[in-house]
Amino acid sequence: MSFEERAKELVAKMTFAEKISQMRYDAPAIERLGVPAYNWWNEALHGVARTGTATVFPQAIAMAASFNTELMQTVASAISDEVRAKYNAFKQTGHTEIYEGLTCWAPNINIFRDPRWGRGHETYGEDPYLTGVMGTAYIKGMQGEGKYRKTDATLKHYAVHSGPESRRHEFNARVSDKDLYETYLWAFKYCIDHADPSAVMGAYNAVDGEPCCASKKLLQDILYGEFGFRGYVVSDCGAICDINNHHKVTKNEAESAALAVNNGCDLNCGTAYQWLKTAAALGLVDEETVTKAVEKLFTARFRLGMFDDDCEYNHIPYDIIECDKHRALNRQMAQEGIVLLKNNGILPLDSSKRIAVIGPNADSVRALLANYKGIPSIYSTLLQGIRNQAKAHVDYAMGCDLMKRDEDKIREAIVAANNSDVVILCMGIDASLEGEEGAVSDVNIGDKPDLELPDIQKKLMEKIIALGKPVIFVNVSGSCMNLTYADTNCDAVIQCFYPGAEGGNALADILYGKVSPSGRLPVTFYKSADDLPPFEDYSMENRTYKFFQGEPLYPFGYGLTYTDIQENWVDENTVEISNNGSFDTNYSVLKYEYIPHKSLCGIKKVFVKCGETVRVHFDK
Amino acid sequence: MSFEERAKELVAKMTFAEKISQMRYDAPAIERLGVPAYNWWNEALHGVARTGTATVFPQAIAMAASFNTELMQTVASAISDEVRAKYNAFKQTGHTEIYEGLTCWAPNINIFRDPRWGRGHETYGEDPYLTGVMGTAYIKGMQGEGKYRKTDATLKHYAVHSGPESRRHEFNARVSDKDLYETYLWAFKYCIDHADPSAVMGAYNAVDGEPCCASKKLLQDILYGEFGFRGYVVSDCGAICDINNHHKVTKNEAESAALAVNNGCDLNCGTAYQWLKTAAALGLVDEETVTKAVEKLFTARFRLGMFDDDCEYNHIPYDIIECDKHRALNRQMAQEGIVLLKNNGILPLDSSKRIAVIGPNADSVRALLANYKGIPSIYSTLLQGIRNQAKAHVDYAMGCDLMKRDEDKIREAIVAANNSDVVILCMGIDASLEGEEGAVSDVNIGDKPDLELPDIQKKLMEKIIALGKPVIFVNVSGSCMNLTYADTNCDAVIQCFYPGAEGGNALADILYGKVSPSGRLPVTFYKSADDLPPFEDYSMENRTYKFFQGEPLYPFGYGLTYTDIQENWVDENTVEISNNGSFDTNYSVLKYEYIPHKSLCGIKKVFVKCGETVRVHFDK
Repeated sequence: MSFEERAKELVAKMTFAEKISQMRYDAPAIERLGVPAYNWWNEALHGVARTGTATVFPQAIAMAASFNTELMQTVASAISDEVRAKYNAFKQTGHTEIYEGLTCWAPNINIFRDPRWGRGHETYGEDPYLTGVMGTAYIKGMQGEGKYRKTDATLKHYAVHSGPESRRHEFNARVSDKDLYETYLWAFKYCIDHADPSAVMGAYNAVDGEPCCASKKLLQDILYGEFGFRGYVVSDCGAICDINNHHKVTKNEAESAALAVNNGCDLNCGTAYQWLKTAAALGLVDEETVTKAVEKLFTARFRLGMFDDDCEYNHIPYDIIECDKHRALNRQMAQEGIVLLKNNGILPLDSSKRIAVIGPNADSVRALLANYKGIPSIYSTLLQGIRNQAKAHVDYAMGCDLMKRDEDKIREAIVAANNSDVVILCMGIDASLEGEEGAVSDVNIGDKPDLELPDIQKKLMEKIIALGKPVIFVNVSGSCMNLTYADTNCDAVIQCFYPGAEGGNALADILYGKVSPSGRLPVTFYKSADDLPPFEDYSMENRTYKFFQGEPLYPFGYGLTYTDIQENWVDENTVEISNNGSFDTNYSVLKYEYIPHKSLCGIKKVFVKCGETVRVHFDK
Repeated sequence: MSFEERAKELVAKMTFAEKISQMRYDAPAIERLGVPAYNWWNEALHGVARTGTATVFPQAIAMAASFNTELMQTVASAISDEVRAKYNAFKQTGHTEIYEGLTCWAPNINIFRDPRWGRGHETYGEDPYLTGVMGTAYIKGMQGEGKYRKTDATLKHYAVHSGPESRRHEFNARVSDKDLYETYLWAFKYCIDHADPSAVMGAYNAVDGEPCCASKKLLQDILYGEFGFRGYVVSDCGAICDINNHHKVTKNEAESAALAVNNGCDLNCGTAYQWLKTAAALGLVDEETVTKAVEKLFTARFRLGMFDDDCEYNHIPYDIIECDKHRALNRQMAQEGIVLLKNNGILPLDSSKRIAVIGPNADSVRALLANYKGIPSIYSTLLQGIRNQAKAHVDYAMGCDLMKRDEDKIREAIVAANNSDVVILCMGIDASLEGEEGAVSDVNIGDKPDLELPDIQKKLMEKIIALGKPVIFVNVSGSCMNLTYADTNCDAVIQCFYPGAEGGNALADILYGKVSPSGRLPVTFYKSADDLPPFEDYSMENRTYKFFQGEPLYPFGYGLTYTDIQENWVDENTVEISNNGSFDTNYSVLKYEYIPHKSLCGIKKVFVKCGETVRVHFDK
């Protein structure tokens, strides 16, 4: 019997109340039918999250910067191995709980349309094509290619979702059909076409008046209709109650639940679906619709092998968590996600130079990890990574806190800089300053007010630069920051996003020339948020490399290597990549089309030894 | 000219207002006399503190547990080298600021009379003799033996000070003369007799009605009189204002300042001494008294070489901070400060055993550092230390937070334990749960309410023990905790206090038998605070090993090694130490006298190879 048939047979034995109970994320057991309790909520954006020790890969935005879809798929395969290893181990305790299951609520394929959005670092950047191919690679790695699905991937947040965090529960995004299809929905369709994702998560916001988790247009007409999506839809957490409480499109939870289920939202993260019984009594929803939803959910559970002993993933051992292979893979991804933005020749660094490593992100574990994260038990901060490879004296001075106006520490930084040949300034922000609603305790509660470094860091940077030593500036952030001052005044500028548990080793690999940098920016680096439309304006006009009319500091796709690469386009789909410099390097070839605006339509990452030429062909 | 003569000559040129200005901890420059500004406040309890990167040695209580006075002096010498290195570097920026000077406000030689006191971990424990000899060793190491003083050490807090933190600004300790001399003042006198400390800091509290910083009895009669102290006295920070605001012994700051200066408190940490001009106008203090105080302060500054180019410490380089030599020394001190309390033979651990390291203090940097601390840029958490030496698979699970009732993490700990041969539970508290006024945000604001592990940790421990795996319990705390349950149910129990930046490596050295443990408890480990008198009762009756009438879990001085040591006392002052086991070990010989209660009166730490006998002679 197929998974669908087994689901149908099982669901046919359930009472209406039992069916409804299975549409909650924390589905209870139905003992008489041998159905164990199952909690659908797990997180795995860049490693198994929220359930303790795991390999913490670079944040999604950093993996996007690798422009390496094959590597992304390999990483996702490692992540899903760890999800399975945990699931197998937890199951042996007799049951599983939240964050212990196989249904993972990632990837976040929203478009990072404005650099102020706090959750932008969970995405693959501002370009729909890059987002589509990275999302596809992630899904393939997570879901596997076996008889059973290894884990379920969930495209989120459908759709258009991208801030502001402070208004997400009532926000109504107004978008043109052109922007909707060309920008906001493009990657969803691409992933559905290319990777058959198990699930889609509806967003908190409304689009053109319809709350996403209950939108006829977005769910019925487009997702299930036009896009032919065959999986299940889950609500964002609490989003169904938002329909009556904040969007005020319905009068109560029963109406909200009915509206959502009737439009194809099968699973509820939250409590609203307990009102489905009331809704049915009021005639707002019929049993057939409920049955169809529950059949989809049990098809997914059967397809994950939850009821079978022969599932090929049942024996992935706990020891693979943070194993050497995963750590090596993690380091490679971190290397490829680091973007070199300026280099006057100081890099790669002579390892005999005395170094002062300065800044609040230099020895910060939090700077490695971003949000939706596990706990690494083996990691290298930027400082530790540099120490591991430096052959001369290394001084460290924190210099200042990320935000607090405590200047006591600046004097130590000056002393350390004076004691060195080269200063490596490790600055920027972390997930306590950009993230989801509630991440930050100020009025923006997660979003950035602007693109500026905190004032205390600017002051530190100015004082260090005034000393006249060579300075390498390393920026940690999941989003565009205004790096104009660093670009003007520093000898080298590196963007390392949130580089994961191996971030320090990977940075040192780049700094000391063990590998050539090969990352590219997955977002435009603007000079100021003032150059952009208001944050709440969802029109794409004057946003992203496609439509921005100003001059960015560093454009989308920008990223230097340590060698001299020449691209020679033989024809529209064929290019010869020549390495005329003295470093072997990875190199991402980007193919653009003009429709009529410039638009990415192809990515291939290749390794080119110095003196060699590699021919790259794009299929389409 | 002697330092005293130079001071006298300089001070003679000062106006009265200038003199008063020099009695503030943040003394301004007197440019016409070539006197630079100087901030007297620096901290160096277990490494240079509050001024960035430094070698962070084990907390004072852990160093006391080494019972190794020679090692203590070597450590203090390393600390003062780092103080000097920082001072030299900061001076090159044109001036020095707070925490950049040479006058260090340590050691804390208060008696840890009650395990609830939050600041107890800053002390050398409950025994006056141990406190006296460790304090002496610290002072000698800090002050050096050169022409100039390397740094100034400051005995604090004079006197009787030991909680509660919540009432320290108004507390009046009532003590008998017997307890005063035998317990609370004993170590002050010992240090003055044996190490000539530069300074003494007055305490916040009052003793028998007299606020300590202005006490005729404590300062004039005892300290300067009976004890013959020749240095300067500094107030604790804000303590002079407490005299009128909280003790209400005076009516205003002018009266408080006058009372303090008249009784010999020469330097004010705080703002009260700005009222000395008013006090003088009112006839409360005379210029001669002020002059004498300022002469003492400038004698100290001259003696520190601040005005001389030939000071032998002017060229200690910045590179010695955290240098290899200091790190090796740090590791040795950490090894010697770890106390083995129970061992059923599981230790030393077979390195081929699969390990699960579990607990909120396992991968915590804060657990290493305690309070009054610098920032280590190289460190090993307990987990990292174990990983560095384990030869088999190591799993890590945090298990729970230190205090928060978040049980999600316990399930991961169970999985990790089930995946291992041996569990190492790393529990206890850190300086966010015991410390100075303000360290903790509950009603105790720094003190412990009792001796219990937080409930969530108890629950985690019970669940792990229920699995039936061998368990090694490692407790991190700066004070006695009730370890009864661990003692009954675990295979080994280790107390590692706050072991400093090399704490993880040192713990692993012990666990895997690289060295035999040799630490001893510097405090009694009681079974419950209920066995003790009320915290605010300053009588020594029924406190410490000397007077406690109950049965402790582990007595003062307790500590196991990996070998079989026999003590054979040849006569009252001579003992033969035979190592009849199979491990070389360090061993602290303790000599007691009975006066009539048992009282420590001699310590010698020796290295005894297996099969050998070492003869130890005590002089007195």
